[in-house]
Amino acid sequence: MHAIDLNSDLGESFGAYTLGMDEKLMEYITSANVACGWHAGDPLVMQKTIRAAAKNGVAVGAHPGYLDLMGFGRREIKITPEEAYTYVLYQLGALDAFTRTEGVKIQHVKPHGALYNQACKDEKLASAICRAAQAFDGELIVLAPYNSAFRTAAEAIGQPFAGEFFADRAYLPDGSLVPRSQPGAVIHDADEACRRVLQMAREGTVTCLDGTELTMRCVSVCVHGDNAEALATVKKIRCSLEQDGVLLRAMKELI
Amino acid sequence: MHAIDLNSDLGESFGAYTLGMDEKLMEYITSANVACGWHAGDPLVMQKTIRAAAKNGVAVGAHPGYLDLMGFGRREIKITPEEAYTYVLYQLGALDAFTRTEGVKIQHVKPHGALYNQACKDEKLASAICRAAQAFDGELIVLAPYNSAFRTAAEAIGQPFAGEFFADRAYLPDGSLVPRSQPGAVIHDADEACRRVLQMAREGTVTCLDGTELTMRCVSVCVHGDNAEALATVKKIRCSLEQDGVLLRAMKELI
Amino acid sequence: MHAIDLNSDLGESFGAYTLGMDEKLMEYITSANVACGWHAGDPLVMQKTIRAAAKNGVAVGAHPGYLDLMGFGRREIKITPEEAYTYVLYQLGALDAFTRTEGVKIQHVKPHGALYNQACKDEKLASAICRAAQAFDGELIVLAPYNSAFRTAAEAIGQPFAGEFFADRAYLPDGSLVPRSQPGAVIHDADEACRRVLQMAREGTVTCLDGTELTMRCVSVCVHGDNAEALATVKKIRCSLEQDGVLLRAMKELI
Amino acid sequence: MHAIDLNSDLGESFGAYTLGMDEKLMEYITSANVACGWHAGDPLVMQKTIRAAAKNGVAVGAHPGYLDLMGFGRREIKITPEEAYTYVLYQLGALDAFTRTEGVKIQHVKPHGALYNQACKDEKLASAICRAAQAFDGELIVLAPYNSAFRTAAEAIGQPFAGEFFADRAYLPDGSLVPRSQPGAVIHDADEACRRVLQMAREGTVTCLDGTELTMRCVSVCVHGDNAEALATVKKIRCSLEQDGVLLRAMKELI
Repeated sequence: MHAIDLNSDLGESFGAYTLGMDEKLMEYITSANVACGWHAGDPLVMQKTIRAAAKNGVAVGAHPGYLDLMGFGRREIKITPEEAYTYVLYQLGALDAFTRTEGVKIQHVKPHGALYNQACKDEKLASAICRAAQAFDGELIVLAPYNSAFRTAAEAIGQPFAGEFFADRAYLPDGSLVPRSQPGAVIHDADEACRRVLQMAREGTVTCLDGTELTMRCVSVCVHGDNAEALATVKKIRCSLEQDGVLLRAMKELI
Repeated sequence: MHAIDLNSDLGESFGAYTLGMDEKLMEYITSANVACGWHAGDPLVMQKTIRAAAKNGVAVGAHPGYLDLMGFGRREIKITPEEAYTYVLYQLGALDAFTRTEGVKIQHVKPHGALYNQACKDEKLASAICRAAQAFDGELIVLAPYNSAFRTAAEAIGQPFAGEFFADRAYLPDGSLVPRSQPGAVIHDADEACRRVLQMAREGTVTCLDGTELTMRCVSVCVHGDNAEALATVKKIRCSLEQDGVLLRAMKELI
Repeated sequence: MHAIDLNSDLGESFGAYTLGMDEKLMEYITSANVACGWHAGDPLVMQKTIRAAAKNGVAVGAHPGYLDLMGFGRREIKITPEEAYTYVLYQLGALDAFTRTEGVKIQHVKPHGALYNQACKDEKLASAICRAAQAFDGELIVLAPYNSAFRTAAEAIGQPFAGEFFADRAYLPDGSLVPRSQPGAVIHDADEACRRVLQMAREGTVTCLDGTELTMRCVSVCVHGDNAEALATVKKIRCSLEQDGVLLRAMKELI
Repeated sequence: MHAIDLNSDLGESFGAYTLGMDEKLMEYITSANVACGWHAGDPLVMQKTIRAAAKNGVAVGAHPGYLDLMGFGRREIKITPEEAYTYVLYQLGALDAFTRTEGVKIQHVKPHGALYNQACKDEKLASAICRAAQAFDGELIVLAPYNSAFRTAAEAIGQPFAGEFFADRAYLPDGSLVPRSQPGAVIHDADEACRRVLQMAREGTVTCLDGTELTMRCVSVCVHGDNAEALATVKKIRCSLEQDGVLLRAMKELI
């Protein structure tokens, strides 16, 4: 039997501002990456999101980002590894206050936006983030691209790692994503996205843009719930996995 | 044998800004109220402060405040009890990420500035803060004035409470502080401050501005380390307590 | 001929967060209260909003608020008049940088949320805000409730004042709004709202909840564009005014 | 007769946090770069700083930076030129509200920290900042290193430019500063700093670390007032210039 996790970013509303379709998305995913109040989210939103996750049986992960609400954590900031370490710890702790009071445990950590992208390529940054995860909880899973500095860093210190697959993005033979600026980078066809997820889930491979078949052992697929169309794709992926006998399980059960 | 705790606000530096004489103050106090990044403090400062406290054997408390760095958390903000509950939880968790990685445990929580002052008189706010403390850790001590809504709220839900005594402030017969706008509100003489602390520590009383002797059972005395003069007073209070055979112990050993 | 201004709050989006239906609303209003980056809005949003207002011939006003994005400026904060003075000045200047580069001039200032509500009753706060308006530009119109500390404060220093009428709110005989907690406080019927605007525009009166007819000389009516229903009401009010021969003019032409 | 301007960063205090020795520094400099509330400074500090500058006859410049108080604007952030344009405009306007009410005019703009350093090498960023300066005021002087993208960008659109000389930093033959990581990068001897300023003021040259004599036409020298030692150096530079007959004038009189 094959099994896979579906993860998505949630809890990104802030004060009077609403973002995402969290309640509906909760019905289809198995793991939620919850914003921790820096790039998005606030304490009331965090509490509400954790409660909804607990109610829906969705596993909770921390989604720490830069203190850049205006840029939604998407802009690169040059920080030191020591800063990254303390920033991730701070946000892990803040989220933990809400999970412990709701009787759940933080399953994983997946950095957000620019922090995620920078650390994928920056060993020192990736190492700082993995060390923060370990200092916080030795069982905390680091969720990140299979081919990234995160995996190397997590394995180097023996911290659990989960590879993350992007259903709607084309891959290069080195395992990195085709940059959005290039043609064919984004897979717009939901059926094609489903086929790719199934192939990855069953065979542990992805067919690259140039036709190369690449090993890609990911236990989790990243999906989005920004709008109705995105939600429809998530629903389709979930149905397609269930029809093909792929079990949907939170990543902690898969590694 | 009498024993007492000396608490002080620490970790209030932020980024390039330095505030307080934390390192020196650590030598004299037994409990530190550590800012949690909202009204003051940042992750690097929090880590450094927790490390220094651990090294000096000073017990650590959370010092949550309003998200008002510009006003240093000293300006009243009208928030709902639910907001207060989540704001305190968030900051408790954030601080906890640093205490757990340094092998210590948060001993107490003492709200900062306007949040503290408002909740002293506002039962709903005090209750929300005490409930947050309890949700986070049933053994977390709420540190606040002996005669305040905090004590009532903590006792109502069975959360540990520690009364806090102000060495340099005159009291009214109802147990509240003489407002700073009134003559005699502040005790500037360090010797007089020492005498008051000793009386409170040994007899559990305070002599009010009008001469009334009032019961005041506080296990902790609040001291300040903002400048050299304040530091000298703390040193004097500590010496005076030791000379008179009053033991200095963190509040968790006293309640 | 009677004439009136329709004002609305705009430019309240922030970073990745969108709020309001600014583009559509611009077609119906004559004055826009533009958020200045403290309670809402950011520099890109401000620039975009000013450009859209200039293009639609809508007069621009500053909508300064508290530095409380998490509370959307709706929570009371106890600040000093001096703080209020500098906070309003800061935001006026920030907005002015965008109006001057688009070739328009700030017509008016209308504080936002809690700052507005507090100053309506607090003479010192209202005075500080009016003095900031005057220091910035002696012709800047202060837009606020007809019966409020704002009018007294503006008149005391000879700063232009424009009364603002709420089409969808019931009034008490003292000219203040019926609190939202009381029955009948909000007028949900769009036709009834239109009738009230027409009466105010033509006769300068409002019929209070208890039947009292009250003098109410406002040159501007506050409308909302938060959602499709609100937008429909604005459209209806505008049509109804035009059909009855009431001219729609920016407030600077009316005082 | 030779003449030169001495500029320094001021108004970098924030809320309860004090930074710099502004009042004393004001006695020696001719131009102040005033923080605008993003990387440092707040409205009360801005008002106080502008008042002190006006009183001391010190010309005022805007010192816009990143919205990164925690990093004091010293960390690189990858922003778009359009963002830079609006961020600089916003801060120029905010500062202008305080200069106009104190009867002075913003003389120049000098970006702060990482924004300054990034734009020195990034033509698009430098161009966006110069265009913001021009949109705000066609006479506003851009103050930046003589050999930098700022000069090219300012000259390309005909905006006034003033070169800035660093008295305590060694130069490379291409006109850039020797990186701080290299030996000899910082000139610690105050007398040597004075000699270099005099040479630059009188001959328009600087002797590079490798002995090369380089043309360096700067009208302003950057000095620091962070502590007593820095202040002593500023005093020494000023005295030395006066003794050698170099006039001290605000940069607007020199270009």
